[in-house]
Amino acid sequence: MRVVAFSDAVFAITITLLVLEIRRPADDTNLLHGLLALWPSYLAYAVTFLFIGQVWANHHVMFDHIRAADRVVLLLNILLLMVVAFLPFATSVLAGALHTGDWQRTAVVFYCIAFDVTALTFNAVWQYACRQRLLSDALDSAGATAIGRRFQLALAWLAIAALLGAALPVLGLAGIVAFNAFYWLPIRGESPARRLKGDAG
Amino acid sequence: MRVVAFSDAVFAITITLLVLEIRRPADDTNLLHGLLALWPSYLAYAVTFLFIGQVWANHHVMFDHIRAADRVVLLLNILLLMVVAFLPFATSVLAGALHTGDWQRTAVVFYCIAFDVTALTFNAVWQYACRQRLLSDALDSAGATAIGRRFQLALAWLAIAALLGAALPVLGLAGIVAFNAFYWLPIRGESPARRLKGDAG
Amino acid sequence: MRVVAFSDAVFAITITLLVLEIRRPADDTNLLHGLLALWPSYLAYAVTFLFIGQVWANHHVMFDHIRAADRVVLLLNILLLMVVAFLPFATSVLAGALHTGDWQRTAVVFYCIAFDVTALTFNAVWQYACRQRLLSDALDSAGATAIGRRFQLALAWLAIAALLGAALPVLGLAGIVAFNAFYWLPIRGESPARRLKGDAG
Amino acid sequence: MRVVAFSDAVFAITITLLVLEIRRPADDTNLLHGLLALWPSYLAYAVTFLFIGQVWANHHVMFDHIRAADRVVLLLNILLLMVVAFLPFATSVLAGALHTGDWQRTAVVFYCIAFDVTALTFNAVWQYACRQRLLSDALDSAGATAIGRRFQLALAWLAIAALLGAALPVLGLAGIVAFNAFYWLPIRGESPARRLKGDAG
Repeated sequence: MRVVAFSDAVFAITITLLVLEIRRPADDTNLLHGLLALWPSYLAYAVTFLFIGQVWANHHVMFDHIRAADRVVLLLNILLLMVVAFLPFATSVLAGALHTGDWQRTAVVFYCIAFDVTALTFNAVWQYACRQRLLSDALDSAGATAIGRRFQLALAWLAIAALLGAALPVLGLAGIVAFNAFYWLPIRGESPARRLKGDAG
Repeated sequence: MRVVAFSDAVFAITITLLVLEIRRPADDTNLLHGLLALWPSYLAYAVTFLFIGQVWANHHVMFDHIRAADRVVLLLNILLLMVVAFLPFATSVLAGALHTGDWQRTAVVFYCIAFDVTALTFNAVWQYACRQRLLSDALDSAGATAIGRRFQLALAWLAIAALLGAALPVLGLAGIVAFNAFYWLPIRGESPARRLKGDAG
Repeated sequence: MRVVAFSDAVFAITITLLVLEIRRPADDTNLLHGLLALWPSYLAYAVTFLFIGQVWANHHVMFDHIRAADRVVLLLNILLLMVVAFLPFATSVLAGALHTGDWQRTAVVFYCIAFDVTALTFNAVWQYACRQRLLSDALDSAGATAIGRRFQLALAWLAIAALLGAALPVLGLAGIVAFNAFYWLPIRGESPARRLKGDAG
Repeated sequence: MRVVAFSDAVFAITITLLVLEIRRPADDTNLLHGLLALWPSYLAYAVTFLFIGQVWANHHVMFDHIRAADRVVLLLNILLLMVVAFLPFATSVLAGALHTGDWQRTAVVFYCIAFDVTALTFNAVWQYACRQRLLSDALDSAGATAIGRRFQLALAWLAIAALLGAALPVLGLAGIVAFNAFYWLPIRGESPARRLKGDAG
């Protein structure tokens, strides 16, 4: 499926480009101190990596249920990819501010907003597909609503993280970390193993 | 299909590399001001991203109708990819000129020409495939002409944008933005949803 | 298969980004001397390239035997990819230290630890899949144990390389080079050719 | 087919990373002059792009005829990819020397050798596959010899280009340009169009 394969490639490239934002310490510094001083870069790298991993997984969940795509779906999906491919820049801004200690509030809010706009584009694709009846017949109305709720929760959660970050930067970051934990960790009784072989997607 | 998969990968990588041209503000500037001052980079990023998204979609339209490729098709397609993969450089030139305010005319014309050469390589692939009768039998002569007209329109549109940009830079940019809008927005009655599942491409 | 295709893309991108760490000599130096002086970069490039090539091959061996993935497998696999995508940074640190001659001990240990954490994530995926009975029925208990032993050997080998590197940097590097040789070179009677055509993976 | 898909990804990424070596002119120079002064970068970009395009096409020709891969084939193929992924660095060295006018002999020879080592790894894969009888039954002995000759010709051609470049840099470059022309341009009666649809590769 073209749209999903193309999107997957963009996710994979974005996630791998994140490391380019981490620069090795200058030659004249103590290397061990220099490597330890890069903790903001490592933290930002890990948080964004896990977030894009979620984006990838949820993008599949979403397109598993969309049976047909018109031009608006393609456009909304390109906007989604445009926001995701922008995340390495937001990550670099966050790491820089945590490193110097200056402008952390601005950097954290910017970072949270970038994540929240990603959630916004997810909601746009899903709401449009629901209204235009582009969903698979195998998904009933309750199922569509459940997925939509999940995406709305992400939108609200990340908006709150941005607001918390505006009050106290560390709270915004904690909100993002909690977001990653909540969406990645398995919930008891919810996570059936999916067969890998013969998976057409 | 090898040629299309390889081309898709180049499109996906190019589109994702665009963000590398955006550098975070220097540590000693006000971060909010610095982020706002990067608006030329954001604008150039978005315009090129949407344009390459169109290139990707139209490349599929084109190769959906080409049933066989000889060595000339492969060569013309490689030239097409060479121009597309060059676009991040043109984008960087544009963003730099908009940022400093110097040499905007040169930068806009250079940017428009890069886009127009992309359209030129599209036309070259299509015209060659038409003349060598490499098109699918499912496409009748009227259909082939319609697609050719669409590609010729792009060629003319982007050439005019370059000329307008030479007169007044902002007009050239407006021409490109209008181009993106025209090719992305759905036209009433024209945009049937395509099934995603079982799509072999 | 989505998980494997996505992982393959991350491996391919990571392996190709390694070259970006090699910068051409400054314009005012003798170019031949400059190119020769970059031997630490070439060495680090080749060693990491071959290592990631092994990671790619072994990732396929592993997922050939995992019949189903739950959310924990996806999470552990994302952690594996996060460590692999980090390797260009560790490679850059190693090349820098070998180039200047300073802090080589720190750089070699850092590099070996990065490799060893990769092995750790492999073991985590495999042990989890074994315990949750997510393995293919075609793999008997002895086969699963043999693969697990192979991964444990890598974990121990790379840990020892880190310890050796802490004692004498060149020993740590020799440990990594020997690791690449051991896992890449064919063992007599062990290496049947696998058919390429019709290979579903 | 895993090996080919992975190799394709490395080719596509390498070809697209080439543009990162082209840096926009400094803000304080006349932009038009600055863009024109980058002609060595454009030339090196185009030559390497077309060369890697050939590598991609020939890699498919080669693996179309290899029916099975053992561990040595995988290792030789990884070495081939390692050399290809290194080409952006050689391209950067060439562009830098052409730009400053210094050390052109060294740069051209280095560039030609990098191309020739690529041809060497091609020959290594093919010779090994021939000797180990890993070729498809559909290819008779004469066909295998013809492909081997073609690869040997590339090896000799690029070695001669390196020697010519050592005598006079422009001759070495001319040798590479002629190489691209010879392998890309269709030969009369030789180039049947290949069907794209239903192509399993």
